[in-house]
Amino acid sequence: MNARTLGTKLVGVIPPMMTPFRENGDLDLDMHQRNMTHWEKDELCGYLVLGSNSESAFLSYDEKLRLIETTAAAASDNRIVLAGTGVESTQETIRLTNAAAKRGAHAALVLTPCYYNDQMTDEALIAHFGHIADHSDIPILIYNVPKFTHINISLTAVARLSNHPNIIGMKDSTGDVPRLAALLANASKEFHIIVGTAAAWFPALMLGIECGILALANLAPNQCASVQNSVRSGNLDSARELYLKMLPVNAAITNRFGIAGLKYAADLAGYEGGSVRSPLLPLGGQAKHEIKEILGTAGLL
Amino acid sequence: MNARTLGTKLVGVIPPMMTPFRENGDLDLDMHQRNMTHWEKDELCGYLVLGSNSESAFLSYDEKLRLIETTAAAASDNRIVLAGTGVESTQETIRLTNAAAKRGAHAALVLTPCYYNDQMTDEALIAHFGHIADHSDIPILIYNVPKFTHINISLTAVARLSNHPNIIGMKDSTGDVPRLAALLANASKEFHIIVGTAAAWFPALMLGIECGILALANLAPNQCASVQNSVRSGNLDSARELYLKMLPVNAAITNRFGIAGLKYAADLAGYEGGSVRSPLLPLGGQAKHEIKEILGTAGLL
Amino acid sequence: MNARTLGTKLVGVIPPMMTPFRENGDLDLDMHQRNMTHWEKDELCGYLVLGSNSESAFLSYDEKLRLIETTAAAASDNRIVLAGTGVESTQETIRLTNAAAKRGAHAALVLTPCYYNDQMTDEALIAHFGHIADHSDIPILIYNVPKFTHINISLTAVARLSNHPNIIGMKDSTGDVPRLAALLANASKEFHIIVGTAAAWFPALMLGIECGILALANLAPNQCASVQNSVRSGNLDSARELYLKMLPVNAAITNRFGIAGLKYAADLAGYEGGSVRSPLLPLGGQAKHEIKEILGTAGLL
Amino acid sequence: MNARTLGTKLVGVIPPMMTPFRENGDLDLDMHQRNMTHWEKDELCGYLVLGSNSESAFLSYDEKLRLIETTAAAASDNRIVLAGTGVESTQETIRLTNAAAKRGAHAALVLTPCYYNDQMTDEALIAHFGHIADHSDIPILIYNVPKFTHINISLTAVARLSNHPNIIGMKDSTGDVPRLAALLANASKEFHIIVGTAAAWFPALMLGIECGILALANLAPNQCASVQNSVRSGNLDSARELYLKMLPVNAAITNRFGIAGLKYAADLAGYEGGSVRSPLLPLGGQAKHEIKEILGTAGLL
Repeated sequence: MNARTLGTKLVGVIPPMMTPFRENGDLDLDMHQRNMTHWEKDELCGYLVLGSNSESAFLSYDEKLRLIETTAAAASDNRIVLAGTGVESTQETIRLTNAAAKRGAHAALVLTPCYYNDQMTDEALIAHFGHIADHSDIPILIYNVPKFTHINISLTAVARLSNHPNIIGMKDSTGDVPRLAALLANASKEFHIIVGTAAAWFPALMLGIECGILALANLAPNQCASVQNSVRSGNLDSARELYLKMLPVNAAITNRFGIAGLKYAADLAGYEGGSVRSPLLPLGGQAKHEIKEILGTAGLL
Repeated sequence: MNARTLGTKLVGVIPPMMTPFRENGDLDLDMHQRNMTHWEKDELCGYLVLGSNSESAFLSYDEKLRLIETTAAAASDNRIVLAGTGVESTQETIRLTNAAAKRGAHAALVLTPCYYNDQMTDEALIAHFGHIADHSDIPILIYNVPKFTHINISLTAVARLSNHPNIIGMKDSTGDVPRLAALLANASKEFHIIVGTAAAWFPALMLGIECGILALANLAPNQCASVQNSVRSGNLDSARELYLKMLPVNAAITNRFGIAGLKYAADLAGYEGGSVRSPLLPLGGQAKHEIKEILGTAGLL
Repeated sequence: MNARTLGTKLVGVIPPMMTPFRENGDLDLDMHQRNMTHWEKDELCGYLVLGSNSESAFLSYDEKLRLIETTAAAASDNRIVLAGTGVESTQETIRLTNAAAKRGAHAALVLTPCYYNDQMTDEALIAHFGHIADHSDIPILIYNVPKFTHINISLTAVARLSNHPNIIGMKDSTGDVPRLAALLANASKEFHIIVGTAAAWFPALMLGIECGILALANLAPNQCASVQNSVRSGNLDSARELYLKMLPVNAAITNRFGIAGLKYAADLAGYEGGSVRSPLLPLGGQAKHEIKEILGTAGLL
Repeated sequence: MNARTLGTKLVGVIPPMMTPFRENGDLDLDMHQRNMTHWEKDELCGYLVLGSNSESAFLSYDEKLRLIETTAAAASDNRIVLAGTGVESTQETIRLTNAAAKRGAHAALVLTPCYYNDQMTDEALIAHFGHIADHSDIPILIYNVPKFTHINISLTAVARLSNHPNIIGMKDSTGDVPRLAALLANASKEFHIIVGTAAAWFPALMLGIECGILALANLAPNQCASVQNSVRSGNLDSARELYLKMLPVNAAITNRFGIAGLKYAADLAGYEGGSVRSPLLPLGGQAKHEIKEILGTAGLL
């Protein structure tokens, strides 16, 4: 699939999929497979494997490839498969990206490198993403998530990179709506700005953004899709109401209770979250109780 | 005017007015008067005197009262006059608030105290605003502007304070749209969430917010009003387009060039900015050149 | 007293004095007078009136002058009286500084302006302090306390200002010892770097710094002096031991429990803290209990 | 070597060794070997392979093991070999730690995990380090470097972990001297607090700290050792003077010019820095010029 064709598929909702582990920390591909079967029936336009919510930071190279393979095999043809392939080293990111391409990923989501954060100047980031895009067998997207990386790629750098034919978009997870507006105004017209959090989903749609990679879509994919459908059909009040109803759920699974909270909420909603990997801690009873209440109030039980 | 009546007037655009100084730093009430005459012809629902853009931090008690008086005298009856009266001390804030009431302010905008920032817990802020509201002759609004105060009042504290009969709303200048959504969802129904930056104006309107206190309205009041009018009449594309067109201007006068930039831009647009007070520095030639270009591109010259 | 003579007096320990208030918030100069009588018997080289620990942010212009007057009258001739006179406006700072001079202050401690923090560039701060020094009847010192101001004046700006004949030093309250070392290396030789927190007192002395303006000196002045005396006489182990013993007390009264904690600890140690002014909250019973324990462990009861 | 014996070796200076790469990014073990030969003649008590300055974030598992092996083989018997083995996953850290032990590392320096930073509570970090220590064949040390990780492990967590028989110390790279003092006061007596930056070397020694893992020791090991020797022999003025002389060099190679700066400075001082790996950028000519000047002024050319 070429960059332009791929771009046309970036319309709708994509879950940054959690990765189910057994209690002993082993990867459980069967659980992942069953989640895929479930998501295939939901209103989604694709999948992101190996995002932040996938606990990618804890996965080995081999585990990453197996997850991509399983995902690509289970995804229906009309759905796009994105794989998170960004690691700290430019060369290693290229290697993983091209291995992901071989396993069936259609495009790669490349995290901003961040360990040597004060060296990650515009110049360094432009060189990094440009070099990866030059050597990648599939189109790439920038992944900007300062909450985890403490790097917030500048508008200038994005504008510049948006002209690269093999860089087709960016997932911006800041939740900073004025920034999304400025990105839309500054990037090239064919560049896809994707909102990376349900906290900004309705406002992003109102700006004209067409795609959301939303942690919330792991457990409430159809509600996320419904917000977008209502906007499309001009029912803004319905869209806003459903968006506001989902906000407390989103806050719980992204900020307050972290990935363990996301997985437990997914369990409650009929998916299979599995355990988290250490050093993440399992949820306590009180946290579970609160999540149950929050999901109940939102009509997700 | 009682709290409920006042609330009905918080619909539309309000400029947080700059304060014109002479080159020697003296207050120039004549320039302010001429600006008022100009703004009276613009599409505004009221005025904020003594906000952050008024360089309130540099004004004496007497200068503050004279500015309130001049503003109230020049404002037409149907426009609301808000005065920024928050200083660090609770007692002193009450004193200034009631003096402002005597000079014609309809309501007071009360900044979160911030110097002893790690002591400004929910408990302290709830006591502070509650005490002021109890002893104020006019309704008050909370003023949340972490960019300057490094305090971001919690949703919990706002929800609690929103039930006080004499606290009628909050100006939130974070530009954090998911936060605005959460504020709307958590505060009491009669509480007015006012967006405090044009960077979030269109998204805020889409959330159902009805009032903006916008630095940009010092020089482009009718453009700000037009965004809201277009939203009301369902012309979302026009609203969004105008909003995006104004974003670079807003960025220039609020972030990049500060109050000196705002004042120079106001000069260019036909208002009278005057000089800034020291320690703020006057603009250099290059900055002036860039602002001129930005305003030109936005069609404001 | 000229700048050079004054400088020779900046050797030893200075308390940034708390300001006692009555329960209703009124200033209690009698309590302050009694504290002065007590401190006069302690081993101190001077006094700072109107620092951050004085709740200066809550004091009126008149209250400030009365506090300076009372302090200057009660201080013995050989002790230096510093007055905190920095407010946001350059002009207003000059006015207060010269009024302080008339009331008996020997030098002024001038806070970095901070409200419009992103405009407080090196250029702006150099102009601000230079202008004040040019127009001040007494020497000035820079007051750098990012914990409250969120401004950390650059080494470059300090080096530049250190050459002004009427700027004789800086109180640096960062507790950042490598920064103190760099300040010593960069500023002019006659410039006095004063450490502004007991958390860094012993390390600062080891760097060759000779003066500390230490909140802890409100209640444990002789212990602070003793650390310095031990260093002077080469008893480094004693100095270090006493410093380490005081650290938990200092953490309690500066970070954990704020000014209310400082005042209560001062009460326990035989001084008169009085009440705090609102919006600061009085201490709860549990906090009082913990402070008592911490002082007991440190041998201050 | 057991934990106690190892601990006795943590006295002196240790370089967190840079990793030389060829221009194409390949690991150059010959250069590393030649550096080892050089460092063996310098006054050092050991080596840290795979610290932050080693660009560990860019190294593959195999490269890491080869570097450990080469280092251990080249190190004389009386010098301790520390290996940085901390990655995000607890299990993977244990695996690498035990592989490092097999290649000759005497102890492991384990970075705080950081990607899911708001989940890295005391509870999570205590469980993480405790679990690793329980399953590691060699003693471990905690590695705290908020500059890169944005995690600053709490005093409480360190105090707790300091009692684990297989956790023998911590490298603290904050440069926060009051924190070092508090760590010394709170951790168990046998726990080794190691200062992780030359910016705090002399003050740390004055607190009684006995070991420094100092980037500066890559190129100026004997100067670092000399500061400590002077302190030991009571020549505090010499120690302080040399420390102050080295500060600008340290600032250049750690903050301002990053690892590329460190490597170039090492080249100038007679070691072999080699190239950096992408996304780090090579130095420009101006930067090289400035570093040369800074080293010249410090007498390192």
